[in-house]
Amino acid sequence: MTIKIKQFVLLKRPVGVPVESNFSLKTETISGDLKENELHLRGIYYSVDPYMRGRMNGAKSYVAPFALNEPISGAVIARVVESKKSGLITGDFVFGQLPWATEMVVDSSSVRKIDVQIGKASDYLGVLGMTGLTAYFGLLKIGQPISGETVVVSGAAGAVGTIVGQIAKMKGCKVIGIVGSGEKEKLLKDRFNFDGMINYKSKDDLVHLIKNACPNGVDVYFDNVGGEISDAVIQNMNFQGRIVLCGQISLYNSKEIPMGPRIQPILLTKSILMQGFIVSNFTEQFPEGLAELSKWVKEGKIEAIETIIEGFENLPKAFIDLFSGKNVGKMMVMAKDIAL
Amino acid sequence: MTIKIKQFVLLKRPVGVPVESNFSLKTETISGDLKENELHLRGIYYSVDPYMRGRMNGAKSYVAPFALNEPISGAVIARVVESKKSGLITGDFVFGQLPWATEMVVDSSSVRKIDVQIGKASDYLGVLGMTGLTAYFGLLKIGQPISGETVVVSGAAGAVGTIVGQIAKMKGCKVIGIVGSGEKEKLLKDRFNFDGMINYKSKDDLVHLIKNACPNGVDVYFDNVGGEISDAVIQNMNFQGRIVLCGQISLYNSKEIPMGPRIQPILLTKSILMQGFIVSNFTEQFPEGLAELSKWVKEGKIEAIETIIEGFENLPKAFIDLFSGKNVGKMMVMAKDIAL
Repeated sequence: MTIKIKQFVLLKRPVGVPVESNFSLKTETISGDLKENELHLRGIYYSVDPYMRGRMNGAKSYVAPFALNEPISGAVIARVVESKKSGLITGDFVFGQLPWATEMVVDSSSVRKIDVQIGKASDYLGVLGMTGLTAYFGLLKIGQPISGETVVVSGAAGAVGTIVGQIAKMKGCKVIGIVGSGEKEKLLKDRFNFDGMINYKSKDDLVHLIKNACPNGVDVYFDNVGGEISDAVIQNMNFQGRIVLCGQISLYNSKEIPMGPRIQPILLTKSILMQGFIVSNFTEQFPEGLAELSKWVKEGKIEAIETIIEGFENLPKAFIDLFSGKNVGKMMVMAKDIAL
Repeated sequence: MTIKIKQFVLLKRPVGVPVESNFSLKTETISGDLKENELHLRGIYYSVDPYMRGRMNGAKSYVAPFALNEPISGAVIARVVESKKSGLITGDFVFGQLPWATEMVVDSSSVRKIDVQIGKASDYLGVLGMTGLTAYFGLLKIGQPISGETVVVSGAAGAVGTIVGQIAKMKGCKVIGIVGSGEKEKLLKDRFNFDGMINYKSKDDLVHLIKNACPNGVDVYFDNVGGEISDAVIQNMNFQGRIVLCGQISLYNSKEIPMGPRIQPILLTKSILMQGFIVSNFTEQFPEGLAELSKWVKEGKIEAIETIIEGFENLPKAFIDLFSGKNVGKMMVMAKDIAL
């Protein structure tokens, strides 16, 4: 076996907003025979996620930083080209944390087979993957919304936000989404039946807009963005409200430590809980979450939306576009040539 | 019955740090006979607490603001002069949210009798009162310290801080106290056996001082003060750490919305919980807390310390002195004439 592959490596650590020249496309040739338990895979869907921005910095975080001149890695759906692992055959779909490479040879322990009878392959990057689990555990285990309460979601038209909103509606909550465009507002209303939408780019005072949309105050705030949007929501929180810290995309590209109004006095006087989390904190409960999410998808109670960019070579651009809100729902890149 | 009383009213709402001219001492004459269920009380110990600063502002909070030209009220230990309530007799000690007045006539439902066999009367403003319960529930129900973990307490020589530190030691934790003077450091070490003390007025970098005192990082931060001290502690928090928001005394006198580094990115990447609370959130569990605290006091496992200022007329000054850290342990004012 001799295969030519293309892969994206991190050339320079971004300062502020990432640019395409931070990445470099390299070609490589892999040759030799597969060893026992190894798989030859071809990438099909590549996930781009805001959290990956953190890994592009040199600083230690809850996941190790990407190394310079090494391939970026992330959630990837791939197909098996050749297998030396029993139980996996050519054509099977697998999921794993894999390099941004057109093809790869990996140990079978680094992937798991996915069942394309339950959902389509790309769902395993979205509603049936980390995205769906993040929404599920963040909202239900931390936010603990009660029927009749008001739930506000920022980044509401994004991958996690659209699922959070749908689960909260299912639980009987009033759901308000904060987004950055009129089209996104329309999407939330028409497709997901949100009770209210707020465009944070509006010229009106955000604190006031939220107050109008949430006359009974905010009980649960599912925060994907941080910054001034969150400042305005926090002003409207109710006594014993819950703030689910899922993302802070507005701050990921900050060059300096971002400053803002201190929030502790509000959290104190209103007995508010704020909890940061990553989905892996709930690993032991993944089977429960996946079972629920799969059921809801099958019953049509949750609809997953995707922004799929075609062409492996567009991976850096798709990633960069996350930060200007170009996506609705789950953003991913699909390889052009997906035949085996 | 005709009695002349003195009482402190709120004359002007403080702007920034309160000053004595915000308060006014008024005399009043009460006459007439006690009605059924009424009590004539004489104040003995008057609690001064940082949270009262919030009630001096006009803004609505979790407790209503004090009205102008009306008496300040707070936790008071009083003795019964005359009783029209069965079960309460002259000389009994009672506790209640009562006016800053030398004597008062109240309905008996607004006080409860205290048992001076379990602890001394003043303990019911401290370790056997809201102070002790605040430390107990905040630390154990929110902070949930595990033996071997590192607990940092700010305002560590204060009323709540000294009790938090002692309970955390009892639970097998390493306890570090942050204070504002060398005498307070000595107190924590000699009297309460703290494992480490940090003087925030030191010229050394606070983040670094905390790092040195907590080589394994901070698992639980019991925050009484807020502001830059808390910024420095938060820099040192461990993954899945817990921040108990009990007080923000450094910010209570702010004239503008205080600004600081945004903390959500740290809370997010480290899966940290931050929870604001007031002790009344745990009302249903008060009997449990009081039973535990009483047992520990009797067994000598918790020692309560007090700063008692003599003379009713010193109430405003004692309250103001809270904000410059003049107290160790529970600060209160004792009436000069406590004979009945």
